[in-house]
Amino acid sequence: MHHAVETFIQDLAVIMLIAGVVTVLFNRFKQPVVLGYIVAGVIIGPHTPPFSLITDERTIQILAELGVIFLLFSLGLEFSLKKLAKVGATAFVAALAEITLMLWVGYEIGIYFGWKKMDAVFLGAMLSVSSTTIIVKALNELGMKREKFAQLIFGILIVEDVLAIGMIALLSGVATSGSVDAGDAVTTIGKLVLFMIVSLVAGILIVPRLLDYVAKFKSKEMLLVTVLGLCFGFCLLVMKMEYSVALGAFLIGAVMAESRHLHQIERLIEPVRDMFSAIFFVAIGLLFNPSILAQYWLPIAVITLAVVLGKVVSCGLATFLSGQDGRTSMRVGMGLSQIGEFSFIIAALGVSLKVTSDFLYPTVVAVSAVTTLLTPYLIKLADPLSSRLAKAMPGKLASVFGMYSTWLASLQPQGDRAELSRIIRRILLQVVVNLALVAAIFIIGGYFAEALGGSMSAWVADPQVQDAIVWGGALLLSLPFLIATYRKLHALSMLLAEISVRPEWAGSYNHAVRRVIAEVIPVVSIVGIMLMIAALSSRILPPTNLLILVLVGAAVLVLVLWQRFVKLHSKLQIALRETLEQQPDEKH
Amino acid sequence: MHHAVETFIQDLAVIMLIAGVVTVLFNRFKQPVVLGYIVAGVIIGPHTPPFSLITDERTIQILAELGVIFLLFSLGLEFSLKKLAKVGATAFVAALAEITLMLWVGYEIGIYFGWKKMDAVFLGAMLSVSSTTIIVKALNELGMKREKFAQLIFGILIVEDVLAIGMIALLSGVATSGSVDAGDAVTTIGKLVLFMIVSLVAGILIVPRLLDYVAKFKSKEMLLVTVLGLCFGFCLLVMKMEYSVALGAFLIGAVMAESRHLHQIERLIEPVRDMFSAIFFVAIGLLFNPSILAQYWLPIAVITLAVVLGKVVSCGLATFLSGQDGRTSMRVGMGLSQIGEFSFIIAALGVSLKVTSDFLYPTVVAVSAVTTLLTPYLIKLADPLSSRLAKAMPGKLASVFGMYSTWLASLQPQGDRAELSRIIRRILLQVVVNLALVAAIFIIGGYFAEALGGSMSAWVADPQVQDAIVWGGALLLSLPFLIATYRKLHALSMLLAEISVRPEWAGSYNHAVRRVIAEVIPVVSIVGIMLMIAALSSRILPPTNLLILVLVGAAVLVLVLWQRFVKLHSKLQIALRETLEQQPDEKH
Repeated sequence: MHHAVETFIQDLAVIMLIAGVVTVLFNRFKQPVVLGYIVAGVIIGPHTPPFSLITDERTIQILAELGVIFLLFSLGLEFSLKKLAKVGATAFVAALAEITLMLWVGYEIGIYFGWKKMDAVFLGAMLSVSSTTIIVKALNELGMKREKFAQLIFGILIVEDVLAIGMIALLSGVATSGSVDAGDAVTTIGKLVLFMIVSLVAGILIVPRLLDYVAKFKSKEMLLVTVLGLCFGFCLLVMKMEYSVALGAFLIGAVMAESRHLHQIERLIEPVRDMFSAIFFVAIGLLFNPSILAQYWLPIAVITLAVVLGKVVSCGLATFLSGQDGRTSMRVGMGLSQIGEFSFIIAALGVSLKVTSDFLYPTVVAVSAVTTLLTPYLIKLADPLSSRLAKAMPGKLASVFGMYSTWLASLQPQGDRAELSRIIRRILLQVVVNLALVAAIFIIGGYFAEALGGSMSAWVADPQVQDAIVWGGALLLSLPFLIATYRKLHALSMLLAEISVRPEWAGSYNHAVRRVIAEVIPVVSIVGIMLMIAALSSRILPPTNLLILVLVGAAVLVLVLWQRFVKLHSKLQIALRETLEQQPDEKH
Repeated sequence: MHHAVETFIQDLAVIMLIAGVVTVLFNRFKQPVVLGYIVAGVIIGPHTPPFSLITDERTIQILAELGVIFLLFSLGLEFSLKKLAKVGATAFVAALAEITLMLWVGYEIGIYFGWKKMDAVFLGAMLSVSSTTIIVKALNELGMKREKFAQLIFGILIVEDVLAIGMIALLSGVATSGSVDAGDAVTTIGKLVLFMIVSLVAGILIVPRLLDYVAKFKSKEMLLVTVLGLCFGFCLLVMKMEYSVALGAFLIGAVMAESRHLHQIERLIEPVRDMFSAIFFVAIGLLFNPSILAQYWLPIAVITLAVVLGKVVSCGLATFLSGQDGRTSMRVGMGLSQIGEFSFIIAALGVSLKVTSDFLYPTVVAVSAVTTLLTPYLIKLADPLSSRLAKAMPGKLASVFGMYSTWLASLQPQGDRAELSRIIRRILLQVVVNLALVAAIFIIGGYFAEALGGSMSAWVADPQVQDAIVWGGALLLSLPFLIATYRKLHALSMLLAEISVRPEWAGSYNHAVRRVIAEVIPVVSIVGIMLMIAALSSRILPPTNLLILVLVGAAVLVLVLWQRFVKLHSKLQIALRETLEQQPDEKH
């Protein structure tokens, strides 16, 4: 015990001392601190002479995992549903284009060099996401953080983070099953999206209120312990559901981002994050074997080139196609042309799942180092390059681009139509969220049925009756959301009937036709929803006679308590909206 | 690896979640948070049903050790040489009285219950130091932090901390050697004091300047990593010298307390400390076996009574005897009547060195819990109790106390004499510090001689010549401090000659006698110092012929470079004084 402590403190001292020295040097010569940490790791690591200065690598790697948690928790805190809604389309298109292209390019490069299929898949994933840390650092140092292209970059990074989190969850699945089945992938993504929606909605309803209560005690220590408890607790839950810790940390961070005490939480978590993320990046350096550079210089060079070109083209072009000017697009593309912390997290995932080869990790670290060093120069290069491109472009092509911009602008809905499309989008969003909650209730019901069965058998012997009770309970819990869904769909179909059924077509039947549409759509949808529920809860679906009993009971409840259910749901909805709309406290 | 991470995150989640819940409850019912953590630890620990919720206790105990480091580092940051100088005598007398009495009482109680001698010694040590955390908390909640008695309590706590740190160092020695030898104890204490002086002087010269440089980069992350690097680095050094980590953390904290960036450092380190100290206190709970309460209720009751009575009597009386009024003295005594974090650190030391019995830890935890709960009530009880005591006191005794106060006040030096005694104290302090540095140089020289010998033997074959080179080098490094010591002693003896040799005694020889005194004292002292050096460096003392050569060389250097040496030393002294006198920055 005493010896273990001594070893541990020695390791920590070595890491922090060398990290400190190297960091000061890197800052002195205006290079990113992150790179300094990695270099520090390489220096004290086992692959460089004179010898390994780290004795208890297991404990250090465990602490590095805490670094991942705190890094992603911080990213989550900076994530904001509001911000995401603002940058919306452009960011989504650019991020999707980038990730798709880079996944494919990375995979092809891996296959070209004759690597294992799994190495190629992981390489693609590692190349697909840019580094928030590096970009924020570079833009800060160039004094460009407030410019328009920077806002676009941050939007793209947010979407990328979400997609990367999904990708990590998928990769874990792929790595353990060994292959990608289209059906499996859809199920996995579906479950993941469902889980994210439910966590966000439930989390935003509960967590900010809880933090409000704790913050009343005015004790920084209590707030910190509560935040850490929620963070690790949720990570544990996510881990038990076989998702990655990274997903959990990011989601709970995003939930806390809606708290009024966001700024205080950020200030409390910052030193803890800095300490553990330093350990995380040093730990990356520890795993880096420089001798691999000599052997793999060609792949490293090719991958570096692919990262820079691929990201500039995909992000730049997507930004341009979604209506930005050429200069801004070029700056966005250049800014995103590196890989960073997510690549390391994915690389570490591959190592810990033992599915990637040894050379992959150091290769990616090398590519990250080179692209990180290039980033500020590339951003500076964007303006001269885009003006040179504009000059060199033949007149015809330029006029085509001009026409494209005009056409794109004409596509944007205007006036009444814009308002209408906004309303329809909002209704659809509410329906999706409500259905996600219903689906989650029935899935959780299925999981709990077995656990509950044991303790229920004392009262109810028949397992079919047990199933009926659980299923009926799930249905009861879902009723407010089902009723809300019905009401929203009803409103939507009235709206659609109003627009689509013009008097000149339907003549005097006008009113009747509208009524039919307005009534038929919601009923058909509800039937579809019930079928979906039956499919999701097939494990605990009671036999027909019991099912009819439960459904009749539910129908009676709905008729009697309709107003109550509507009120309950609107209370929840108001609580959610209030939390989302409140501004974080600036004081403290 | 993956499994280890999962286990670890699960443990952390359990700790933080339960700590969070219990903490909120304890705060709700106005009980100290620290107690909440310990209770949380007991709940999740292996000794309470249903089962242990912690799987990887080793990693948790390692993290708890980080808690000790950060707790003591924070204490060090709050320590201040200036503050210590102000409360000075009263605090020192009270702390010494308390520690001496409680060491003895604790030891006797242990022996009375027939415990092992080592258990009795550790019990004494655990009872001797009060808990800063609990007291600050209690005074905060009672709104009494700014009152006079609170300032006295803080002074006593500072002295206690220093003495406790020394005690921990001694206990480690005692535990490994198994007995206390008076000579050994003196040597150990001497070395410890030397080490503390040298660390403080060297640290205050170097560290605040280093932090100034790093702070210029305006990066919180860099400052944090540097602070952590220095903290762990120094802890490592201290550990390698076989002192406790606690000593290292406290000393480096005290050094950083002199930095201009103190407040920023405190803000950065606070969340990290809160996180790990929560783990530390929970880990204490983990080790607590409640079943021991039934078996050891008598010792626990006796020890609790001894702690309250012993501390009230020793601290209260000592405070009163050093010139405070009865009410203040009673409040000081009542405020200090509990044990806390240092007791746990000492208990953990005993466990990790495997010299104490299993029951000691839970016993002390129980005593700490009870005394902690009593603290606020005891403080509130102080005023009524002291007025009742004053009434009940017979007239004669009261007049004796009154005379004592008058006599004590008359003892304080006034006017010129006060100024004179201040000057003499300052000179003596400077001499002690300079001599400590010289002693340290020669001791370090001795340690390095062997290490250097290996690499030197390529050039210098004769080990005696090697010794002469190392010894000469040490002498060269010491020269500025030796010369300074000589000059200070010279000034002091002139001063003493001036005061003590009155014209009416020495008549016309007045001037000559003064001169003799002024010249003889420094020369005799320097000879004494050289003998001390010879004794300290006996391992590398060169043979006589070489020694004479080195001494002659040094003498020539002293004659030629006297002015240079004087300048160098005064530069160092000015740098030290500047650092000590600067005020910490309030901004950021």
